[in-house]
Amino acid sequence: MTVNVGWIGLGLIGKPMARRLVQAGYPVTVWNRTPAKAADLIREGARLAATPREAAAPADVLFTCVSDPPAVEAALWGDDGAMAGLRAGSVLVDSSTVAPALARREAAAAAARGVEFLEAPVTGGTWGAEKGELVFLVGGEAATLERVQPLLAHLGKKWFHLGPHGAGQTVKLAMNMLYALEVQGLAEALALVTGSGVPADKLLEVLASSMGRAPVLDIKAPMMTSRNFAPSFPLRLMHKDLGLALELANQLGIPLPATAAARETYSAVKGAAQEDVDYAAVMNFWRRP
Amino acid sequence: MTVNVGWIGLGLIGKPMARRLVQAGYPVTVWNRTPAKAADLIREGARLAATPREAAAPADVLFTCVSDPPAVEAALWGDDGAMAGLRAGSVLVDSSTVAPALARREAAAAAARGVEFLEAPVTGGTWGAEKGELVFLVGGEAATLERVQPLLAHLGKKWFHLGPHGAGQTVKLAMNMLYALEVQGLAEALALVTGSGVPADKLLEVLASSMGRAPVLDIKAPMMTSRNFAPSFPLRLMHKDLGLALELANQLGIPLPATAAARETYSAVKGAAQEDVDYAAVMNFWRRP
Amino acid sequence: MTVNVGWIGLGLIGKPMARRLVQAGYPVTVWNRTPAKAADLIREGARLAATPREAAAPADVLFTCVSDPPAVEAALWGDDGAMAGLRAGSVLVDSSTVAPALARREAAAAAARGVEFLEAPVTGGTWGAEKGELVFLVGGEAATLERVQPLLAHLGKKWFHLGPHGAGQTVKLAMNMLYALEVQGLAEALALVTGSGVPADKLLEVLASSMGRAPVLDIKAPMMTSRNFAPSFPLRLMHKDLGLALELANQLGIPLPATAAARETYSAVKGAAQEDVDYAAVMNFWRRP
Amino acid sequence: MTVNVGWIGLGLIGKPMARRLVQAGYPVTVWNRTPAKAADLIREGARLAATPREAAAPADVLFTCVSDPPAVEAALWGDDGAMAGLRAGSVLVDSSTVAPALARREAAAAAARGVEFLEAPVTGGTWGAEKGELVFLVGGEAATLERVQPLLAHLGKKWFHLGPHGAGQTVKLAMNMLYALEVQGLAEALALVTGSGVPADKLLEVLASSMGRAPVLDIKAPMMTSRNFAPSFPLRLMHKDLGLALELANQLGIPLPATAAARETYSAVKGAAQEDVDYAAVMNFWRRP
Repeated sequence: MTVNVGWIGLGLIGKPMARRLVQAGYPVTVWNRTPAKAADLIREGARLAATPREAAAPADVLFTCVSDPPAVEAALWGDDGAMAGLRAGSVLVDSSTVAPALARREAAAAAARGVEFLEAPVTGGTWGAEKGELVFLVGGEAATLERVQPLLAHLGKKWFHLGPHGAGQTVKLAMNMLYALEVQGLAEALALVTGSGVPADKLLEVLASSMGRAPVLDIKAPMMTSRNFAPSFPLRLMHKDLGLALELANQLGIPLPATAAARETYSAVKGAAQEDVDYAAVMNFWRRP
Repeated sequence: MTVNVGWIGLGLIGKPMARRLVQAGYPVTVWNRTPAKAADLIREGARLAATPREAAAPADVLFTCVSDPPAVEAALWGDDGAMAGLRAGSVLVDSSTVAPALARREAAAAAARGVEFLEAPVTGGTWGAEKGELVFLVGGEAATLERVQPLLAHLGKKWFHLGPHGAGQTVKLAMNMLYALEVQGLAEALALVTGSGVPADKLLEVLASSMGRAPVLDIKAPMMTSRNFAPSFPLRLMHKDLGLALELANQLGIPLPATAAARETYSAVKGAAQEDVDYAAVMNFWRRP
Repeated sequence: MTVNVGWIGLGLIGKPMARRLVQAGYPVTVWNRTPAKAADLIREGARLAATPREAAAPADVLFTCVSDPPAVEAALWGDDGAMAGLRAGSVLVDSSTVAPALARREAAAAAARGVEFLEAPVTGGTWGAEKGELVFLVGGEAATLERVQPLLAHLGKKWFHLGPHGAGQTVKLAMNMLYALEVQGLAEALALVTGSGVPADKLLEVLASSMGRAPVLDIKAPMMTSRNFAPSFPLRLMHKDLGLALELANQLGIPLPATAAARETYSAVKGAAQEDVDYAAVMNFWRRP
Repeated sequence: MTVNVGWIGLGLIGKPMARRLVQAGYPVTVWNRTPAKAADLIREGARLAATPREAAAPADVLFTCVSDPPAVEAALWGDDGAMAGLRAGSVLVDSSTVAPALARREAAAAAARGVEFLEAPVTGGTWGAEKGELVFLVGGEAATLERVQPLLAHLGKKWFHLGPHGAGQTVKLAMNMLYALEVQGLAEALALVTGSGVPADKLLEVLASSMGRAPVLDIKAPMMTSRNFAPSFPLRLMHKDLGLALELANQLGIPLPATAAARETYSAVKGAAQEDVDYAAVMNFWRRP
């Protein structure tokens, strides 16, 4: 039996994901705030919905993959929002990165309509989305995960079932914090070394054969030394995720001193109108007058 | 022609280093603030000096490997200090981690006596020191490095020549900052995840197959989740090195916001009388009443 | 002509404010989430509304004074919310402390119904509310302020017209940040002095005749040294306001490093279940095991 | 009986202090690293010493008032240092701001020569020094304080005896931390307000009638809004004192998160070659490209 797919959000991650499902032969109905971005997908076989609700109506499984919590809220609960269009028995999968509390709110609203909900934020970037090598950090019922697994298999190489609703988003935020602090650590180390008159390459040479080496640093280090920040993960979104992590931690009364310090650094760089470059551009904090 | 070695400092790193030279057949004269710690080395063939000066007097190459800047100053310039004992034509190698400015001061004082100086702080820990697998971060003249290379070859597997005096210490401090922030990142991520009710293992499972994975985290993560902090690198010394890095950066006017935040976290844990455990114990910041 | 007053929110500040209007002879219709808290006001002459909408319906001027943004949203736009009850030509005055963006949203929603809006967060605490000595930090039209001035005159001693909608909340958040950092500064200074073995009183003696003396420190210092934290302004609310300030700053790309560090300190204390005490209890950050 | 005064350090504070003693009729022998700065004092009746030791030799009371710990160490223990010149029975008063540990080291070295020691760092700035309205924060024996009180009475309006050696410096560092955080609080508040498009004056108007008002803010606020940073207390010295406070706290294991964050802000501004302006120039942290 054919599985009808609805898809909301055609950004840097969402669009290549949707394309893979179109290419796999699924009927896919897409909605995007800027419809023009859907043009090539339509030519490739997707159907365009005029509203989130229209994308949801025929869907057995509806994916949402948008940039931040307000975008999720608008897509689900705004005018002609998707939530009102979902049929009982369908599944809603949110691949956006949002607060765990919002994930739980989505789950509750879905349940009230007889819809199963799964949060499934992803890591792997545009590259992973294009190659179908994303990793899904899943929160929700195991049975729901099983239902959508055939679809996820077209999109990613791995899914971690991390617990009930909220757990997937919590781990996603924690992972992004960790990435941000690793990159911040490298940025501060580079600032110290180059500010002392030692070439950046000397540090990177030592790093490469050290216990501190991490793939994320292998990728970001050349961006930071060449100041070429073509976005793999935009600074704007990393900054948003640090904010979500801090908001969560502050609700729980868990101090995150270094994350808080790092976020202000990202904020300063964001303020200098560089928010769409890669988050490795946090290095620009040290390019001062 | 036999090379006479002088050795000052028989701590967690210095002692296994000195032992390897004794075992390699070099005549080694050692001095340690607490002479009792030299007992087994003496049995194995080393000679005990009563003062740093006595250890320096016969040395073609004098190594110092002590815990902090005051200990270096005391050993070199205190009563019966080593500097006054060094012969023209000999080499002084300091494997302690200290401020670049102190390294330059050592170099100048040595030069005034016709002594060549090399800073060569190490990474690799006790384990690396025992196996002869240390990495040396060297600042000074290439020719001096060449002179001592046969000795270093017994002690380590690699040496990076990073520039003139000061460069080795600068890179060493930068690397330790980076380790500290990677571990801090993991600690804050674990605090958030477990404080949210998600098991720590879920985060570690995701980390293991992520771009954020680093050998130092593979080693520290189990210590942090089991709260077993047998020291590989004592928190006290990491805390000291963060202080040296911040002092250097503040002299240069280079802000290091996350490093500064992390240092205060280490400080809080140090204050709770846990300074001799591994620096992974920064995790204890989140074990609060 | 009689002015009918609606009042939403009977907390530590709102209730004494409402009481002063009842005592001044205004017909006041009140609503509170916990109706029991209205009992004495009803005996004194106020009328109880069953919903926010009912409190709004008869009002020429409706005041809201609740604890945080979600409470404002619930009161205005939740089930039977006040916004739907407001008559064209009436005035809505929000004395809650919320984000400037929410204030602008309130203004827009009010305008759509022909209702004038004023944000008027207050300083002065319970004591000021009881004595009618509050200070209002007003954003909105001068003409609207003029309309409600006779009411404000019963409640406060001063009102600052700070600019258009949003300006009042912005200045309120900035003032609370400043208070928080002054108190944080005193807390850190006390921690250093007492941790060094010098009695706290020695610092306070010097402070009292110094350029650093501020009324807020005169009030908080004895609370901090006696560890008696009877709430004048609850830590929970200060913590919330620091979060709002940081959220605003991060949207604008303005780094606030010390505020961010202070917020994590408040967060740690809040996590230790002390959120209803006065914010001077940030001092408890340094009472560690 | 005439009291012979020795004076070391003719900076922004030291010189007007020395002048007041000359004017009061004391025989004063001065030494300064840059002798040219003594020229006018010599014309007014002071005697110039060629070395610190020479300034100390005739002194019944020797004052030192230099900019930082290395300057104190050089003056006391460097070539022809003052310590070696002091006579038994004389008094050494150090009005520099240094670490408590250094104060205790000074006390011990003085005691070994039969010299009494008092630390007496000052607040009040150049203006207070000229008018004889300084405040002394004293550590040491009460009897020593009594001996030098007639001299202090020419220099200041008040002296606090804060405890044994070290206590005066500890309280001085704590007070400077508090000033720095009050000014940082105002700077961050101004950055938020003006970054939001609200004029700085609106915040200052509210501040002026608030519980947060402090004399130090009355003085710094106009400097910060006009960006006119004529130095009353140079940023370089405040930055140094924050470093001393953090060093002390880190030795004790007392976390100072907001002070640490503030220090990095000062560091960034210092790095922009603005270290000789007033510390209110920390405001320049927010003047970014």
